[in-house]
Amino acid sequence: MTEGESKAEHASDTRRFDIDPHFIAQVAGAAYDRDGPELRRLLKPLHPADVADVIEQLPIEALRRLIQLIGRELDPLFLADVSWERREEVLALLPDDYVGDALGQLDTDDAAAVAADIEESKLEVILAQTDEDTRLAVEQTLAEDESTAGRLMQREFVAAPEFWTVGNAIDHMRSSVELPEVFFEIYVVDPGFRPIGSVPVSTFLRMARDVRLTDIMKPAQISIRAEMDQEEVAYAFQKYHLASAPVVDDAGRLTGMVTVDDVVHVIQEENQEDLLALSGVSDASTADNVTASVRARAPWLILNMLTALIASSVISRFQGSIEKLVALAVLMPIVASLGGNAGTQALAVAVRALSARELTASNALRHIVREGVTALVNGLLIATLLAIVAGLWFHSRGIALAIFLAVLINLACAGLAGIMVPLTLRRFGADPAVSSSVFVTFVTDCVGFLAFLGLATLILL
Amino acid sequence: MTEGESKAEHASDTRRFDIDPHFIAQVAGAAYDRDGPELRRLLKPLHPADVADVIEQLPIEALRRLIQLIGRELDPLFLADVSWERREEVLALLPDDYVGDALGQLDTDDAAAVAADIEESKLEVILAQTDEDTRLAVEQTLAEDESTAGRLMQREFVAAPEFWTVGNAIDHMRSSVELPEVFFEIYVVDPGFRPIGSVPVSTFLRMARDVRLTDIMKPAQISIRAEMDQEEVAYAFQKYHLASAPVVDDAGRLTGMVTVDDVVHVIQEENQEDLLALSGVSDASTADNVTASVRARAPWLILNMLTALIASSVISRFQGSIEKLVALAVLMPIVASLGGNAGTQALAVAVRALSARELTASNALRHIVREGVTALVNGLLIATLLAIVAGLWFHSRGIALAIFLAVLINLACAGLAGIMVPLTLRRFGADPAVSSSVFVTFVTDCVGFLAFLGLATLILL
Repeated sequence: MTEGESKAEHASDTRRFDIDPHFIAQVAGAAYDRDGPELRRLLKPLHPADVADVIEQLPIEALRRLIQLIGRELDPLFLADVSWERREEVLALLPDDYVGDALGQLDTDDAAAVAADIEESKLEVILAQTDEDTRLAVEQTLAEDESTAGRLMQREFVAAPEFWTVGNAIDHMRSSVELPEVFFEIYVVDPGFRPIGSVPVSTFLRMARDVRLTDIMKPAQISIRAEMDQEEVAYAFQKYHLASAPVVDDAGRLTGMVTVDDVVHVIQEENQEDLLALSGVSDASTADNVTASVRARAPWLILNMLTALIASSVISRFQGSIEKLVALAVLMPIVASLGGNAGTQALAVAVRALSARELTASNALRHIVREGVTALVNGLLIATLLAIVAGLWFHSRGIALAIFLAVLINLACAGLAGIMVPLTLRRFGADPAVSSSVFVTFVTDCVGFLAFLGLATLILL
Repeated sequence: MTEGESKAEHASDTRRFDIDPHFIAQVAGAAYDRDGPELRRLLKPLHPADVADVIEQLPIEALRRLIQLIGRELDPLFLADVSWERREEVLALLPDDYVGDALGQLDTDDAAAVAADIEESKLEVILAQTDEDTRLAVEQTLAEDESTAGRLMQREFVAAPEFWTVGNAIDHMRSSVELPEVFFEIYVVDPGFRPIGSVPVSTFLRMARDVRLTDIMKPAQISIRAEMDQEEVAYAFQKYHLASAPVVDDAGRLTGMVTVDDVVHVIQEENQEDLLALSGVSDASTADNVTASVRARAPWLILNMLTALIASSVISRFQGSIEKLVALAVLMPIVASLGGNAGTQALAVAVRALSARELTASNALRHIVREGVTALVNGLLIATLLAIVAGLWFHSRGIALAIFLAVLINLACAGLAGIMVPLTLRRFGADPAVSSSVFVTFVTDCVGFLAFLGLATLILL
């Protein structure tokens, strides 16, 4: 209790659950001093997730010394909470037998995630020393495809045959040693081990011992297959407010359980993938080194260079007009920029609505009409303002008219491209966030230059 | 079971948990035909969340008829899962006594969210008819600030005094009627009703009746105050893998409980706010009508117009150069576009890292250096490619050299602006996602035009 209180006092009001940078510095100092007792004093009272934070943020040399000094004494649960880049470094420093024990103590989904970051030859040695159950569970989980329910689930769960009573189940749990650390539901299975319903653990506590499980269970409405994409699993948890869900194999037999804390990370991950993809970064990983950063961004910059060259070729058609009236060169980037901005707005709204499943086949037309009308209203507003400014700047009604019409046209195209591009990508089974912003700005650049320069040439020259 | 199976058969493999558009059309058809029995047959077997989906997607006239015909028979739980826009419409159609009952049946956090969408005068009438407990809980929750733990929490929870045994607690739960629908933990409180620990419900089932709660509880390490921002609550749930957490008032007394299913929605919401803010859309609401869409976007377009005008004034300084060499006008948008793109990439990575708490005061310098080096590597690559293309296109080594240097400079500025702008906004307590992309593209536009036109003028003219 005192530890919790003192920690709360240290933390600032807005970032209560972050580790204080001063605390990190203190740990690093103790590690450099090779002061084992001080390290123990500092880390012992922390939650494993806070230990993970410290491990994450320590300079590599301090980390090395810390592991040498008190690595064996760390609660292995922290391994589940460290980023994969740091985990690789930590696992290389920890002794094999500690890592083997850790794999046995973690839930199978976490154990598999940790095992995936151990060098292959080392992993073989470690798994050969662990107990049969751990080895099998890790190997089976790693054999599942990444980003599927099979990879997310743990193989520990509580199942009860349909003829059991509340009393039977409680007696079973009191005598069994192989239970998950924490669980929220007990799954009722038929003789073929297929889940037919579930009983929340809290319901159990309210029921008399002789009540039959089939009388209090919720029927199994949601069935998750091991090969299901994790994004779909996350959607089911959100939609149905699930705390855990049973996972079944091809024959419909219960093989595992997904819990909501794993799903929380998937939701975070999938959302952030959208954010990065919309901004032209290909890899959702933190990309904590330069090589990864370059790889994640260079392809999109090259694509952007190509589309920008095509947009430039539109401009080059009007070189004669620009030579005669250089104001056109001054103003044309504004038309393109406004279009790009409006397109990005429409795109973000559409991608959000698609990922929240609010934009569906049933209401796509309503969304498209809304984007069109929004573009028209915003277009009239912005085009009028800009026409006034440009007309006064260059003392020309013709320029004012040309820019007014060009902005109106470009914002309309931007709104429609912003919603049609992601809808089309989704239609063809592609991720609507990936590459859509390149398409949209390509459209708004070309339309912006063509409309403004074309109209100005017609009106003025 | 058969219902679950037939639903699974209907659903496509990739979108298993969405409602089939054909099913929506069927419900709409039955509503237009005023076919009550058919509507009952279709909706009865659905999960409340699926009913909410149907209600969400029905045309408004079909919805009106459906509520007239079978509104009273709907399980009120669906109200928690409908978007607020649609909920306003539905609540106006439902009879007062149904809504009053619904508020009593929902958890207090959901009841308050529903109540917030009822017209004020109507809400007073409804609350006057409900039981005292419901009225008080709704009024207290609505009095809390939006987006805080107080608004998120439910007032139903299970607390046990510290001297109780497992048996005492189970007897209490078996006899109490005021328990939450589902709960994951029991909070142990001291005589001042301050939480001192928690016992997961699953632990209860494994323990003998005479075990003392204080011997099996996890000490209370995480303390959430009612006024805490929901983003911080969500972070605590993610970091510590919580299923539920106690909420305390100013005196540290237990007043409520936040459950993970509510937090899942907060995580989704906060992430999507980032995505929209980065794309220049102010309001995270779905903005399902034109007025809201215009309001959420027009201010950013106007700001964008102003920054684009400033960037244009940079170009206007070089009108003489452009008149002499119109190729400059053709190529300058490419330099600006590449800068904007690289800046957006760096910005998205920084905003993601900030929201995941991976970018902290302890490691900001490391991130900045990484962005700088990434910009240099990508800059060399892209600048070389573009210099070759531009040099060949306009048969000019001078143009090739000018564009090479300008792209290099602009990508370096883009990388640094992309990380420094959100860090600076965060430093001054602002949301790093809001308005940062406008700043960044302003920098890259100005730098792009200035560097390219300035260098070209120096080299060529």
